[in-house]
This record gives sequence, structure tokens and C-alpha cells, in this order.
Amino acid sequence: MTNALRLGIAGLGTVGVGVVRIIRKHAHLLEARTGRRIEIVAVSARDAGKDRGVPLGDYAWETDPVALARRDDIDVFVELMGGAEGAAKDAVEAALQGGKDVVTANKAMLAHHGQDLALLAEEAGRQIRYEAAVAGGIPVIKALTEGLAGNEITRVMGVMNGTCNYILTRMEATGQGYNALFKEASDLGYLEADPNLDVGGIDAGHKLAILASIAFGTQVNFDGVELEGIQRITLEDIRQAADMGYRVKLLGVAQRSPRGLVQRMQPCLVPAHSPLGQLEGGTNMVVIEGDAIDQLVLRGPGAGEGPTASAVLGDICDLARGVKLPVFGQPAKTLEAAQPAQTGLPAPYYLRMSLLDKPGALAKIAKILGDAGVSIDRMRQYGHTNGAAPVLFVTHKTTRASLDVALEAMATTDVIASEPVALRIEHV
Amino acid sequence: MTNALRLGIAGLGTVGVGVVRIIRKHAHLLEARTGRRIEIVAVSARDAGKDRGVPLGDYAWETDPVALARRDDIDVFVELMGGAEGAAKDAVEAALQGGKDVVTANKAMLAHHGQDLALLAEEAGRQIRYEAAVAGGIPVIKALTEGLAGNEITRVMGVMNGTCNYILTRMEATGQGYNALFKEASDLGYLEADPNLDVGGIDAGHKLAILASIAFGTQVNFDGVELEGIQRITLEDIRQAADMGYRVKLLGVAQRSPRGLVQRMQPCLVPAHSPLGQLEGGTNMVVIEGDAIDQLVLRGPGAGEGPTASAVLGDICDLARGVKLPVFGQPAKTLEAAQPAQTGLPAPYYLRMSLLDKPGALAKIAKILGDAGVSIDRMRQYGHTNGAAPVLFVTHKTTRASLDVALEAMATTDVIASEPVALRIEHV
Repeated sequence: MTNALRLGIAGLGTVGVGVVRIIRKHAHLLEARTGRRIEIVAVSARDAGKDRGVPLGDYAWETDPVALARRDDIDVFVELMGGAEGAAKDAVEAALQGGKDVVTANKAMLAHHGQDLALLAEEAGRQIRYEAAVAGGIPVIKALTEGLAGNEITRVMGVMNGTCNYILTRMEATGQGYNALFKEASDLGYLEADPNLDVGGIDAGHKLAILASIAFGTQVNFDGVELEGIQRITLEDIRQAADMGYRVKLLGVAQRSPRGLVQRMQPCLVPAHSPLGQLEGGTNMVVIEGDAIDQLVLRGPGAGEGPTASAVLGDICDLARGVKLPVFGQPAKTLEAAQPAQTGLPAPYYLRMSLLDKPGALAKIAKILGDAGVSIDRMRQYGHTNGAAPVLFVTHKTTRASLDVALEAMATTDVIASEPVALRIEHV
Repeated sequence: MTNALRLGIAGLGTVGVGVVRIIRKHAHLLEARTGRRIEIVAVSARDAGKDRGVPLGDYAWETDPVALARRDDIDVFVELMGGAEGAAKDAVEAALQGGKDVVTANKAMLAHHGQDLALLAEEAGRQIRYEAAVAGGIPVIKALTEGLAGNEITRVMGVMNGTCNYILTRMEATGQGYNALFKEASDLGYLEADPNLDVGGIDAGHKLAILASIAFGTQVNFDGVELEGIQRITLEDIRQAADMGYRVKLLGVAQRSPRGLVQRMQPCLVPAHSPLGQLEGGTNMVVIEGDAIDQLVLRGPGAGEGPTASAVLGDICDLARGVKLPVFGQPAKTLEAAQPAQTGLPAPYYLRMSLLDKPGALAKIAKILGDAGVSIDRMRQYGHTNGAAPVLFVTHKTTRASLDVALEAMATTDVIASEPVALRIEHV
């Protein structure tokens, strides 16, 4: 009777409302571009009574997202609830089993269950699309899976948690410390309910694991991501980095090494004049390097109603146009199990510590570094306070393993006032 | 007998050879990603005997690209010859009429004949894909047509001629003038056979016209692009701009205005700290603004064997995967005829001229500007040479039409030593 693409939308938070709003506002534009009407049939959310600022009366209401996913009158199940487990995953599985395509923004679910869901979808001949799961409005999944399909991808990097970048760049701009800016971000509603998802690097790590799967033809392996948050970054780190021509970013890097797949999400120093170094506030950036393209840089809003809904709509339009793709760029059954690299490629490191005011303290540390094979490029000691002195080293290229040997040895001395901070200096 | 996607490639210059090289090198990768073998069946180029550094002996050779396009044993005709008219267009038409899909890097052909070719393709149920025609390796056609399909696009901007950006940024870096850098670019092989295609802004204008069509749902209208090259930019302009916090870029801008579609490709001043302002050398950048995404910035290599071949392969992989899209994002028969705006939106302008050393010269110019309704924000006169003094104005926001009235009036005075240079200051 109709050629419309019929949607069921589960989750009416910021993103869900944004999707409804675009579909209502741009009905004609979307039909002109896809050749089909995009029609919302039914929706689902926790609270049916809440005023969400968009009229929802035309749509059937399901209290249970699984029931929504099983409706016979939808073609596409749009999952915008979030959460790695539980209702979101149950509903996505029900949708795929029931012959529906899925559009989702759920990075946690894909990072933890992407391989199983992709197998399920591909056996059922269905699609899972998830542009909104990585880097908000930036169409990076499309660029990597489709636009760069002719490349062997050599490295993927990204600043993909806007809240962390907001905190780090505001520390530099305002001269306030981490705790004050964490509170500011919290007051502004920028933090997840569990803030460790943001500042602990977990959310960004989910995104990196998804990109790595597409880039390297490996099964998503979030457990293989070396994770470190921004909680220990001080204003002093940011200032010392700036003084040496760097900026501190929570940077994700995925690349193949002779030892296996490297996936790191950790605060790094990047050159201040590189595109990544210049990134301000909540904006995201993904850098993709391939053997033919050399380097592609994508920059855009990483969150928010409009940008995330834009990504969801891109996927919906693809489905309306009949685009069919393997979930992770090649069939899930052909993806290799990722072999996580035990240790990453060598790099210079920034090393900050506080040394107690004892004779020979610096000599002890210097000897420990030397014994571990870590050679020092620059050293700086900058003023005593309370019987301890902050000391800064920049090392020559070394492996994290060598550095860890040195850090362990330092911990057994009696000259360290607090646990040292070690930040990789990434050439981008 | 086979599920391979069979290609005929016309044109074995840098890009054609790059495409052959990737298909040979990444045969397995491409098959894993698309589910089909990508097979070159036949090729065509002017000189069959030339050693191009890749083995071509496995492929049938056609001297006539139209004959290649008509072969029964190809699925896709890959046109990499270039030229708006003649053999390239004849062969593309023959391919479409014969039921083949087309992949092309030919911006001139699409800028001049895109609408007719799209109508032809869509009537025949065939695809024309042209990612490589705009901004080299950057998958901008895909981002605009697919990734941002849920947006009403509000503005598209781009630095899309690497040679011009190379000349302008090298002028600043080396302190050499335009002519010296033009020669350097020529010696390095960066210039088209007709250099006016580059430095006159024509090549970049072709690209802008293509992007505008997709962005605004209008028929490609290259004649509607207001074109100005970089030939009159002096080192002094670049230095004065830098002194005020700007950089000079050959910038394309397309947007809807109340008066119609604005398409401008001209040297502009952009803020030095904006992503466009920071762009160095031959790199390209496209900025897309939409009502949901806000702003997306794409940065990558705009030319060269690898990047351009990467874009061609992206299109080929899409065809292998069965992706079908209207050529300009919505069916060609639904595209509106563009109504070119007679005059662009108001902006501040940078205005450089040389005034003869006559009493009252400056007063005359100031009066002319005032009479035309152009008000002055800043003025600077910086030293006489040979009886004339360079004078610089920065105006408040004004229309180009008002400025043109003033420029015409200035030309009738006896105080101007040479034709003034007027550069728009673009807020990006």
C-alpha cells in the first residue's frame, strides 16, 4: 500500500527527540532525497506522560521496547536508549530476529557485543547502522567503511569525548584545576550519569574499539583497549606541555604493530599546531591514515541533539535508499580475532613527579631511568614547596614496558612524594 | 559464471595508474569488503607503448574510449581522461546508454554537463559516481549526499585547489612574490596544462558548482559561479592580512540568500586561527554547515595518485556493494534550476590601491566610498614609492554591488595608479 520506510523509535531522550523533530520538519526533503516517506509508526520511552517538546500523539506508544521491536508494522528499529546490556540489547536482538533493520547510537552495546550482534544481523540478512555511536555528527563510520574502502588503513586516531576535551581546554583557558572544571562540566550537564565513562576514557574507548574493528578487519575488542582517564592531569601538566609546544588531549590511537593490534585511549601530548592540538572545547576530531589517502581529518560536534540526530538520520536515509553493508565493513564471520599488542610502539614520554627534598634524590631517579634503558632528552626542576620539588622529564623514544620497569623501581625508593604521571608524546 | 565487478578504465595518467595499482595490490581486501572480485577487463589510453610502471598485459586494450565504454564484458566504465567535452563525454554517454555504471573524476564535465548526464543516467537506471572529482581523496560527496542527508544544508565552503593554496602559503612562508611561486608550482608539475584552470579559480569553481547542486537541490550551474583568480594577490596583501589576523585563501562559498543561490570562488581573507585559515600547502578543506550538524570540517589531500585513486576506489566499492543513489542526491528531474543571486550577502572588504602623489587624492577616494554607502573601518597608508603610495582600507559590512559602484567611480579619477584589489573578509 505504501512505499514508506516505517520506524519504531525506542528512547526519547535528547537524541530521540532530535530524530523525531528532524523527521517532522524535513519530511519533504527526506522524501525527495530517498524517494520514500520516512514514517514514525511507534515510539517507546520510560515516561509516557512527559512533555518532550515535540508532538508524539500520532505515534503508537509501547512501554516495552522489545514489544516495539517486534511490531509487524515497522521496517527499522531505532535504538536510542543506551546501555550495553538489558533492554537495549534485548530489543535489538528481537528486531533483528524479527527481520527488522536496526539503527543505533549505542557505543557501549557495540563495543561489548558488536561481534555477536553483527553475526546475528548478517545471518538474518539485516543491517545494523550506528553512525551516531562514534564522534556524534561526524560521518566517520561512513568515511571509514565506504569512502576509504580502497585503502589499507594504517592508523586511526581521535579525540572522541567532548567532555574531556572541554575540561582540558578550559583548564588551559581559565587557569582552573581539574576538580573545578569537572564540577563545571557536571553543572552544565556534560557528564554521563557515571562520570567515569567520560573522564575515565571508557566512552571514548568504546568508540575507538568500534573504529579499530572496521579499520583492521578485526572483531571488536574493547577489552584490548589500554585505558587511562584524565583525572590525574594537573594544570601544571597543561602549562608545561604548552611551554614545550604541546597540548594535552585524551587521544585514542589504533594501529597494527608487529606485536598485534594497538588500541590506546589515554591522555597524550600532541603538537600544539597539529589539527588535533588545535581542537577546542567539545568538538571531536578523527584522523584516519591509509596507504592511498595518506591522511584524512574529520572535525565536528561530538554530541548534542542536532548533530547526533543528524548521524541517525544519515543511517535512516541509507536504509530508505536500500544501501546494504556488512556491519563492520566486511562480513562478521570473516573478521579476525584481534591479537592485542602487549606493548605499544616506542614514543617519547612526558614524566612528571614530585621528589622529596633529600640529598641524592634526583640521582636515584636518573639512575633508575638509565638502568631501565630510558634515556632523558630534557629535565626541569621548578621550585620546592612543602619539602618536595616538582620534576619534569622528557624522555627519548622508549617503550611503555621499559618506562613501567622504571616506574615500579621508583615506587620502591624513599624519594618520591606522589605517584608519577607519565604521558605519551604522540606524533600526529 | 562470475560475480566479479568488471571494469573498463579509460585514461592511464597518474590517477588511472593509481587505480590499477590499488586493484592489483588490494585484490583480497577489496573482495573481503565488497563480497566481489574487482576485475579490470580492459583499458584505454593514448599511448599503448608507454611504460606506466604497472603491468597492463592482462587487460584488453582499446584505442577508442567509446569502444571501451561499449564493451559487453564490462559493468562499470571508469572515466579518468578529463576534459569537459569530446571523448570523455562521448564515452560516458555511450556507457550509460549501454547500461553501464560510470565512475569519473571529471569535474569539468560534471560542472558543464552534470544535469544532462544525470538525467541520462537516471532514465537508464544507471549510476554516475564522482567522489574523485571534488577535493581529491576527501570523501566529501559521500558526506554531503549520504552522511548529512538529514540536514538542510545552509552553507558549503572550501579550499579546493591545492595549487593555489600552495602558491599562497609559500608566498607567506618564503617572502617571494606571486610570479616566483607560480614558476615554482609550474616546475613541480602542480599546474594544469592551462594554468588558468588553477590560478584563475576555474577548477575550484567546477568543484563548488557540483557541491552546490547536492547541497541545495539545484541543477549544477557553473555559469552562476562568481569567479576570481589569485593572480593579482601580492606579497603585500598577504602580509597586511596576516598583520590583521587573517590569511588569504582561494575560498569557495555556496549558500542560499534571499536573492537566490550564491556561488563564489574568489580570494578571501579568513581568520588565521580558523580551520580554513590554518590550512597549509596543497591540502584541501571543505566545510559543510547544516541545520542539524552545525559544522563539519573535512581536511585531506586534494590531488595526487594515491588520494585521487582512493576516491575512485570508494566509488567502485560502492557499486560492487550495490549502492544506488541519485547522481546529485535527489533525482535529477526534481532538481530546481538555480537562480543565481545578483549580488552576495554583505561582508567587510579589504581594499588595496595605489594612490598617485597628488594633493587631495585620499580625500577623493574617501568621498567616493562614502557616496557609494561604503563606510571605512580602518585605513592605512604605508610609504611612497615612485610617486605613488599604497593605501589600504578595511570597510564595514557592505555589498559587493556598493563596492563596485565605488570602484567604477575611482577608475574615472586621475589619482589611482593601478586597478584596486578588493578581497572579501569571510567569517568562517
